[in-house]
Amino acid sequence: MKQLRIGMIGYKFMGKAHSNAYRSLPMFFPKSLKPEMSVLCGRNGEAVREAARVMGWAESETDWRRLVEREDIDLIDINAPSNAHKEIALAAAKAGKHIFCEKPLALTLEDSREMLQAAETAGVAHMVGFNYRFSPAVRLAKKLVDSGRLGQIYHFRAWFLQDWILDPEFPLVWRLQKEIAGSGSHGDLGAHLIDLAHYLVGGIKEVIGMSETFIKERPLAAEMTGLSATGDKNAPKGQVTVDDATLFLARFDNGALGSFEATRFAAGHRSTNSFEINGSLGSVKFDFERMNELEVYLTRDDEDVQGFRRVLATDPAHDYAEAWWPPGHTIGFEHTFIHEMLELSQALEEGRQPQPNFRDGVNCQAVLEAVERSVAERRWVTISEM
Amino acid sequence: MKQLRIGMIGYKFMGKAHSNAYRSLPMFFPKSLKPEMSVLCGRNGEAVREAARVMGWAESETDWRRLVEREDIDLIDINAPSNAHKEIALAAAKAGKHIFCEKPLALTLEDSREMLQAAETAGVAHMVGFNYRFSPAVRLAKKLVDSGRLGQIYHFRAWFLQDWILDPEFPLVWRLQKEIAGSGSHGDLGAHLIDLAHYLVGGIKEVIGMSETFIKERPLAAEMTGLSATGDKNAPKGQVTVDDATLFLARFDNGALGSFEATRFAAGHRSTNSFEINGSLGSVKFDFERMNELEVYLTRDDEDVQGFRRVLATDPAHDYAEAWWPPGHTIGFEHTFIHEMLELSQALEEGRQPQPNFRDGVNCQAVLEAVERSVAERRWVTISEM
Amino acid sequence: MKQLRIGMIGYKFMGKAHSNAYRSLPMFFPKSLKPEMSVLCGRNGEAVREAARVMGWAESETDWRRLVEREDIDLIDINAPSNAHKEIALAAAKAGKHIFCEKPLALTLEDSREMLQAAETAGVAHMVGFNYRFSPAVRLAKKLVDSGRLGQIYHFRAWFLQDWILDPEFPLVWRLQKEIAGSGSHGDLGAHLIDLAHYLVGGIKEVIGMSETFIKERPLAAEMTGLSATGDKNAPKGQVTVDDATLFLARFDNGALGSFEATRFAAGHRSTNSFEINGSLGSVKFDFERMNELEVYLTRDDEDVQGFRRVLATDPAHDYAEAWWPPGHTIGFEHTFIHEMLELSQALEEGRQPQPNFRDGVNCQAVLEAVERSVAERRWVTISEM
Amino acid sequence: MKQLRIGMIGYKFMGKAHSNAYRSLPMFFPKSLKPEMSVLCGRNGEAVREAARVMGWAESETDWRRLVEREDIDLIDINAPSNAHKEIALAAAKAGKHIFCEKPLALTLEDSREMLQAAETAGVAHMVGFNYRFSPAVRLAKKLVDSGRLGQIYHFRAWFLQDWILDPEFPLVWRLQKEIAGSGSHGDLGAHLIDLAHYLVGGIKEVIGMSETFIKERPLAAEMTGLSATGDKNAPKGQVTVDDATLFLARFDNGALGSFEATRFAAGHRSTNSFEINGSLGSVKFDFERMNELEVYLTRDDEDVQGFRRVLATDPAHDYAEAWWPPGHTIGFEHTFIHEMLELSQALEEGRQPQPNFRDGVNCQAVLEAVERSVAERRWVTISEM
Repeated sequence: MKQLRIGMIGYKFMGKAHSNAYRSLPMFFPKSLKPEMSVLCGRNGEAVREAARVMGWAESETDWRRLVEREDIDLIDINAPSNAHKEIALAAAKAGKHIFCEKPLALTLEDSREMLQAAETAGVAHMVGFNYRFSPAVRLAKKLVDSGRLGQIYHFRAWFLQDWILDPEFPLVWRLQKEIAGSGSHGDLGAHLIDLAHYLVGGIKEVIGMSETFIKERPLAAEMTGLSATGDKNAPKGQVTVDDATLFLARFDNGALGSFEATRFAAGHRSTNSFEINGSLGSVKFDFERMNELEVYLTRDDEDVQGFRRVLATDPAHDYAEAWWPPGHTIGFEHTFIHEMLELSQALEEGRQPQPNFRDGVNCQAVLEAVERSVAERRWVTISEM
Repeated sequence: MKQLRIGMIGYKFMGKAHSNAYRSLPMFFPKSLKPEMSVLCGRNGEAVREAARVMGWAESETDWRRLVEREDIDLIDINAPSNAHKEIALAAAKAGKHIFCEKPLALTLEDSREMLQAAETAGVAHMVGFNYRFSPAVRLAKKLVDSGRLGQIYHFRAWFLQDWILDPEFPLVWRLQKEIAGSGSHGDLGAHLIDLAHYLVGGIKEVIGMSETFIKERPLAAEMTGLSATGDKNAPKGQVTVDDATLFLARFDNGALGSFEATRFAAGHRSTNSFEINGSLGSVKFDFERMNELEVYLTRDDEDVQGFRRVLATDPAHDYAEAWWPPGHTIGFEHTFIHEMLELSQALEEGRQPQPNFRDGVNCQAVLEAVERSVAERRWVTISEM
Repeated sequence: MKQLRIGMIGYKFMGKAHSNAYRSLPMFFPKSLKPEMSVLCGRNGEAVREAARVMGWAESETDWRRLVEREDIDLIDINAPSNAHKEIALAAAKAGKHIFCEKPLALTLEDSREMLQAAETAGVAHMVGFNYRFSPAVRLAKKLVDSGRLGQIYHFRAWFLQDWILDPEFPLVWRLQKEIAGSGSHGDLGAHLIDLAHYLVGGIKEVIGMSETFIKERPLAAEMTGLSATGDKNAPKGQVTVDDATLFLARFDNGALGSFEATRFAAGHRSTNSFEINGSLGSVKFDFERMNELEVYLTRDDEDVQGFRRVLATDPAHDYAEAWWPPGHTIGFEHTFIHEMLELSQALEEGRQPQPNFRDGVNCQAVLEAVERSVAERRWVTISEM
Repeated sequence: MKQLRIGMIGYKFMGKAHSNAYRSLPMFFPKSLKPEMSVLCGRNGEAVREAARVMGWAESETDWRRLVEREDIDLIDINAPSNAHKEIALAAAKAGKHIFCEKPLALTLEDSREMLQAAETAGVAHMVGFNYRFSPAVRLAKKLVDSGRLGQIYHFRAWFLQDWILDPEFPLVWRLQKEIAGSGSHGDLGAHLIDLAHYLVGGIKEVIGMSETFIKERPLAAEMTGLSATGDKNAPKGQVTVDDATLFLARFDNGALGSFEATRFAAGHRSTNSFEINGSLGSVKFDFERMNELEVYLTRDDEDVQGFRRVLATDPAHDYAEAWWPPGHTIGFEHTFIHEMLELSQALEEGRQPQPNFRDGVNCQAVLEAVERSVAERRWVTISEM
């Protein structure tokens, strides 16, 4: 088994998910490349050392530039906050490293294009972390669309609903600050929906959107890491500079109509990442809170037994299922990352670009930014003008 | 359109459902016999007069014997408390009237047999009120079983769960008194499950059961009508003489295994009347709280899209649906009675016995009583010994 | 009991639902006014006579002008095709009749305003048929919003999905012709969503929409009635002049964000009329295919048992429930019309305008038309400019 | 971090789940003991060597007796076929090793008692693999019961439904042979239900059951491993000597009524492991196919919003949740084993017996065997007579 020596920058929510994926890949997909968890990098030396120990990285490092220059590293995994993606990626490409970068690829479309170009120029492999593509149930949706079993696609509607900042006293974490996060629900949640739309339905032609920041000021956070933060409701307040919710309508290149909604203000929805596709021959529905399931409707069913069927994507007929447990035994969130790393591994072995890669990241960024422009200018924006 | 002149005894919960059915039949099934709502009968003269007015009966009456003797009545509808069924039915049969009788047919198997024999001797039509057979979704289940699309039946499991007497202060209404009601959850709820089992799977060979009365004493009811009652928690208490819950296992004649549970102590279940059938080629699931739906699984579906499908039985392909509203527009509890009366009407026109009739009532009673014997004697009881 | 003498124009889908409502009102709500089903009116004499007989109308009539002039009629019920609403309503108002008019009120906003003004000038009662307001579960949503139990409203999203014209060979019925229907999915389905939004959240400030006609030509219909039609796929084709699907985004006066989607091209959705509301203290979800249920989430629940609860709106604590069946026994589509007629009856008795009335019809039409303008002009349109 | 040196016997379905648990424990629960994956043992030298390599075991071994004698091993993990459990456990206890044994503990009650006594005599820690206790949603059910929030328990009903041998051509794998597996659905699936009943409701007093083998002969398996097998439908047939389905009724010590059903003939159910508990103050429902969810009903909810709520047990308020991903991000089947190993680790550190241990295994076996006796003798069997 060939090895893939990894240097990873970031070790919070995504860093943990990636570490687990690297660790698990060889056990469940023994024919894949074996990821070598070489170096974990973060700014706080003590914290990163402890994280490396717990998650199984051989070494730790506090200077990403040093990491990027190491000769004994094949791939740089970037899951630091969004505002750091570009600089690291450019340096990694220049150093000839393969790159795995979390989404959103960059803070701006321009930056993301620069990253793509750098990676292409350097001839390295590049991948972007749209992990939801790797749910077996989503793969089934893709298979049904691509095989024509849903017919011509008329509608794609998707919503990613959360409620973690519903409380106005929740502190001003970095994900609520534009200069670090780029945007709020739009880039964090909407980006996933856009990528799923691209993956499942195809290119988007034009968009128009609407955004809102419901809670405009929040207590400054004392400390913040990943999604959590310690706050003090009497702390001085700062401005929330990202969107709490962004909705948009879209027209796809193939004529389908799209509806998208991302919000962090949907009480009761911890992380409802859902989509539905309606075609001339059938429909599918997905909800990540029940990620092992895909609801499927097919018009060709006998008239008296037509209805949405709940397919549990754990049978051998479904992607990845045989690597896991017997039918009916479910997998969870973290498995999407393991499958993602499998794609990375297979692409490297086959000498092709992984899917999704920086081009998909750019395409997503183009739609994100087109929506932002449509919000600012209160008009339809075509993707081609971006 | 020929008419069917009806005299009905009882005017509470079931009386209201029957009245509505008679009223609605000609509008939605205009080819059926036209029920003439002639006489409504009850013991309280003032109350029955008011009920007749509100529900649309031409006359009222306080003496059922007088009603039964009237020459201008074709059918006697009995929905008085269970302990009155037998005497009325015998008199009605003797008078040559057709009979519709609510379930349970009688307090004992012997009584129910006497009723069947009386009706057969008199040559009148007889029907028993197992209304759940007439849900379109249940009819679909029947069709799937009978056509062989579910294959050989292995399992039937059914439960009828309610919670209306969960509160120990709920008063001692007639449904909790053996001399009037015959039994508790068993005869009230279990009887429906047994009839559905007979209808969908076939005859039962042997049973063994278990019963419990969780709350053994309750405040005496000041007044009681139908399901409701006014109580006073400081009222003197009386003995609950029926079962709060009865469960039993059964073996069907065709080798299938059955599991039945009826209870009034299932918190949160207002009226969950559910069954599931598993066969060699498929399964169906039904829950009356979502009575328009049947979940259907078929093994012949393509491997990658196997799953229970939620069939909404409102399409033209489903029984009764065309009489009602467009696909996707649901019907409710009361419609089962309208369909029941349609069967009554069609049977009379075709000169055959309605389904289900007193024979089905007797068969149900035999199982009910076999279960009671199995509880008392703590042993398996075969239906043939009853 | 005072009577209300009704003359009804139209006797297909809606006519049947209204007739059933008038028939059922006195039995289930005996304190209401008693509707007198006096005259049924339609163009085809033989057909309307037969419909009157089946549905229980005393007389039939083929000329609505004659009907409107009759002195023995108190209320005109208009459920003829949409293009006839205005002329009839104006005549009825002029004749001093109360008016119940199906939605959409008119083909244009201007027409609907004219109708409102005529009714107000004449001093008659006027009501518009947004029947979904009268589902007990929707009433519960209204109660939760109005009482503040959901807090400040952030999001309203709604979709009305059908699939009855998915087949490109389905014929060109009147509902697909702009001159008769006014619009397609937008006015037929979207109108209901807009009214629910008004009812539950309040006024809409601005909108932007997107429309599509996926199948642009269809076989001409041989004959057409209500929703059904007989077609011949070899028949000459005609132009579909209404929208198959219309989506729009909206901003409410109170700052909430709205997302609306109406389509007839959602395979598997016979009639999915759904909405969700997210507030600062909770959320609710509704789906008309399970119309007895409302999913409710409340942030104040104990931390370890937070979740959407499935409330079955059949308990005495819910509107209308006591008139029907015991808890857990559901009602159906037709019951919304009975409750609607109850409101009409109560309003007439109390000498107030029913809710919803022509003003609500106008408000709905304003949004419908604003959306159409926004589609045509590809820009945000404020309701105030309409 | 102290280490726990493990020798594991068996490496198929359960061996893979256990290996993954040992690997994952230190990363997600860094305060736990660190399991050292020392030796993997199996009969086929080549296969076990390859399994050890893939799953991360330091060494492999083909003779379990040699393994048990090694001084550098602290714990013996037994997941070999059921008929091997006893002999290995006795040897391990004698050698002073802690023991983790998969369920069912043994083929007979007598054997399981011998194992318990041996472990107690040796003073070693012993645990049995009832992994479903370790779903966060099941833990929530336990918490609600123990805290009294469900009140007095009236009902426990549970069913474990699978369909993997529905096809009569499915070969005669070891799980269908009594001398190896002990029993069929009863010991495999029913055992889990019994343990959950003990865990959640308490001791069982008496039982009566019913069993069936629907397909009495099957093609001999060419080769068999874990749950899968390669078969040839023309192969000679052998006798199926275990039950395909076993149902039983039970009375608990605390008066609650129990209903249990285990089957491998429920088409469409890949692995539906469900239970429901009804108490005087509330109810809970669980289905392992949606293992992150618990449905909870509480009578104390406000009257107008009573209903089963879908609690997603991924919030910090739920057991284990903080070790994993943010709220709304689910875990899967394999996580129950990681939590199981956490309990093992914590118990060893705290010097107490893990829960569940061999005593729970014995208690489960007593019920299993009482049910078998009740089937054979067609009578109620009390647990105390076992």
